[in-house]
Amino acid sequence: MTGSRAGDYRILHEAALRDYLAGLPEIVALLGPEPVSWSISEVGDGNLNLVFIVKGDRGGVAVKQALPYVRLVGESWPLPLSRAHYEYLALSRQAGLAPSLVPALLHHNETLALTVMELLEPHIIMRKGLVAGAQYPRFADDITTFMARTLFFTSDLALTAAAKKDAIAAFAGNHALCKITEDLIFTDPYRIAEQNRWTAPYLDALAADLREDMELHVAVSRLKLKFMASPEALLHGDLHTGSIMVTMSQTRVIDPEFAFYGPMGFDVGAVLANLLMAYFASAGHERAPGERQAFEAWVLETVEQVWNEFARKFLDLWRSEARGDAYPASLFPGEKGAARLEIERLAYMQRLFTDTIGFAAAKTIRRIFGLAHNIDFELIEDLERRAVSEARAVRLAREMMVETAAFRTIADVTAAARKLRPWMPELSG
Amino acid sequence: MTGSRAGDYRILHEAALRDYLAGLPEIVALLGPEPVSWSISEVGDGNLNLVFIVKGDRGGVAVKQALPYVRLVGESWPLPLSRAHYEYLALSRQAGLAPSLVPALLHHNETLALTVMELLEPHIIMRKGLVAGAQYPRFADDITTFMARTLFFTSDLALTAAAKKDAIAAFAGNHALCKITEDLIFTDPYRIAEQNRWTAPYLDALAADLREDMELHVAVSRLKLKFMASPEALLHGDLHTGSIMVTMSQTRVIDPEFAFYGPMGFDVGAVLANLLMAYFASAGHERAPGERQAFEAWVLETVEQVWNEFARKFLDLWRSEARGDAYPASLFPGEKGAARLEIERLAYMQRLFTDTIGFAAAKTIRRIFGLAHNIDFELIEDLERRAVSEARAVRLAREMMVETAAFRTIADVTAAARKLRPWMPELSG
Repeated sequence: MTGSRAGDYRILHEAALRDYLAGLPEIVALLGPEPVSWSISEVGDGNLNLVFIVKGDRGGVAVKQALPYVRLVGESWPLPLSRAHYEYLALSRQAGLAPSLVPALLHHNETLALTVMELLEPHIIMRKGLVAGAQYPRFADDITTFMARTLFFTSDLALTAAAKKDAIAAFAGNHALCKITEDLIFTDPYRIAEQNRWTAPYLDALAADLREDMELHVAVSRLKLKFMASPEALLHGDLHTGSIMVTMSQTRVIDPEFAFYGPMGFDVGAVLANLLMAYFASAGHERAPGERQAFEAWVLETVEQVWNEFARKFLDLWRSEARGDAYPASLFPGEKGAARLEIERLAYMQRLFTDTIGFAAAKTIRRIFGLAHNIDFELIEDLERRAVSEARAVRLAREMMVETAAFRTIADVTAAARKLRPWMPELSG
Repeated sequence: MTGSRAGDYRILHEAALRDYLAGLPEIVALLGPEPVSWSISEVGDGNLNLVFIVKGDRGGVAVKQALPYVRLVGESWPLPLSRAHYEYLALSRQAGLAPSLVPALLHHNETLALTVMELLEPHIIMRKGLVAGAQYPRFADDITTFMARTLFFTSDLALTAAAKKDAIAAFAGNHALCKITEDLIFTDPYRIAEQNRWTAPYLDALAADLREDMELHVAVSRLKLKFMASPEALLHGDLHTGSIMVTMSQTRVIDPEFAFYGPMGFDVGAVLANLLMAYFASAGHERAPGERQAFEAWVLETVEQVWNEFARKFLDLWRSEARGDAYPASLFPGEKGAARLEIERLAYMQRLFTDTIGFAAAKTIRRIFGLAHNIDFELIEDLERRAVSEARAVRLAREMMVETAAFRTIADVTAAARKLRPWMPELSG
């Protein structure tokens, strides 16, 4: 599946891409035999890459090509093409562990940093659906299966220490992508940084508060250190609702180019954070008070399900598939051993919950004060209303990051969110 | 310095070693121009390798060659020669960070898994000195400099995340040596395992207690997971008093073939554990009651100094040399930021202390119930006296591992040790 390494990287725009794909028999078989008739459109709305949808008589494919710089910023911010290799590697492993929850891989060319994948149709980016107030009945079950399986089976609970070390090393080279996270999520929002932005002037005072809040800086620094030095499992690494495509009956996780071995709570926290942001943004999308009540109730219910079902599935895997070197079964023999190990499993999940809450908070704050924002908030046109929604999300995030121990269960989180829904913050300006 | 990769590995016994060294001009210059006159003696008393001392008219060198199996067990337990590469790599880094505290590297041949080093003379293995009741006035200062510098400068506090990930990957292949630790320290002593042994029959009941002690099994499993999945810094990985050579005025750390990126507390705990074992063993080496009181007082004082001086030096480095990506200075501006960061530094050291105490306990228990014992206890000829000393050490270790939170300072550890000195355990048999 890996294409030739010969030849140099070049950006394939429409004509060159058509020629390239026409040379791949397996792709021609999918699209139809007349390349000139294929339609090709660039649809990338992410921050980093080119994404093409190619359609022919018989069907379509999606083509993703990495650019040697950050698309959102431009050539002034170079970014290694090797990320396409790590994305391909992660997608391959995810496909083995959760095959129906990622797009099928059709072709990969390392030199061109280009991957051809199954065209997901009629799937849409989940975040767009959430902005519109759509409810996705399959989502909680699917995303928790994805997370429980990809995290458990790449952890010390499922792998030998040797296999795990090899896997860590295989992803160690993806550090340029990790650095984006380290800077943009764990550092810049808490200090003066050129690329920061927020809903000014309304959040000016809140932004200044965050920069002065040393308890928060300690908390985010601990999370950053955990992100850098806790290779617990193979993470997706960017698991927000813009990396998830959905229909009413299907869920697909895309774009694992930030994949590396890191702390599990970072992935789980990303999902929770993005649901909580959708919840707080919802008020800003109301055209009439209470209009989105059912949606908002569903979002909070989904927040609870995401943690609870993830924990349940992860624990079930641990009980039945623990072939790794951690917590060896031989140390927990008999009924007494089994009972004690079960208590430890729950304690482990409680520690993971604490991590998750902290990472969720960090993922929220970066979307409101950092470089990359999300349409949940950005599509609220009235800036004052947008700022109200954002300030509510930030207040919860600040509590989650600094008062983490106060959140013992996911119901504590949804209760706090519900309580903040009517809160009217004092805004600047 | 790295020799040719051409040719196959072969074990170099005396004659072949003489020929090999005679072909190395830099070694001939050190030893003297007449290879036939060199004396060569095999002195390896460790568990894994061949070690030769080669002396000529002008001077001497030490030569270490890895065997493709565990020397202690034999060819039935193969072990990769690549450990010589990791040892060389670790020794090079340690030499850069603590140059006067490791032997000088003179020559390395990757294919032969062979390293020629400075001959440490008249240094002796520290453990032998401790058995004899010797006090080493330089030890606490030297070993804490070694640990503070090698751990700090290879951590996220000193390195960029990218450099750290590269370094983790560079040592990831040393997993066969890590597995020895995972099995022999963190697993086997707590279950029936063919290679376990203890001072029978006196410790039979205690061995059985340990195998039934589920609180201990949870604690050691958490430590094992931390050992496998917390690459905080480049560890020596086997920092017991048999890996330290001393005179009254010098300290040299040798044999870092277990080096890998792991939790810092494992190295610090190894030093503390081996001092505590020397303390408890001392009673067994007394020929008259109280004869070794001054020695024992010095050992406990050294235990305290090792932690306190390590912590002081590590904190000093953090305050002055923190160029890593963790805890970025820009998040802790001004007096308020500096004050809050200082509090966090102390909290970080407290977490590291807790890890250290746990790892010290694990390192103790393995020496009394696992495969590899140490001469501190083994040279106590009267088995009942030996068992008494061992039982005291195990009782403290069990408290340190399970009631870790009760030990807030190193003085809590030495107080507990002092209290156990006269305790007479009930023995089996």
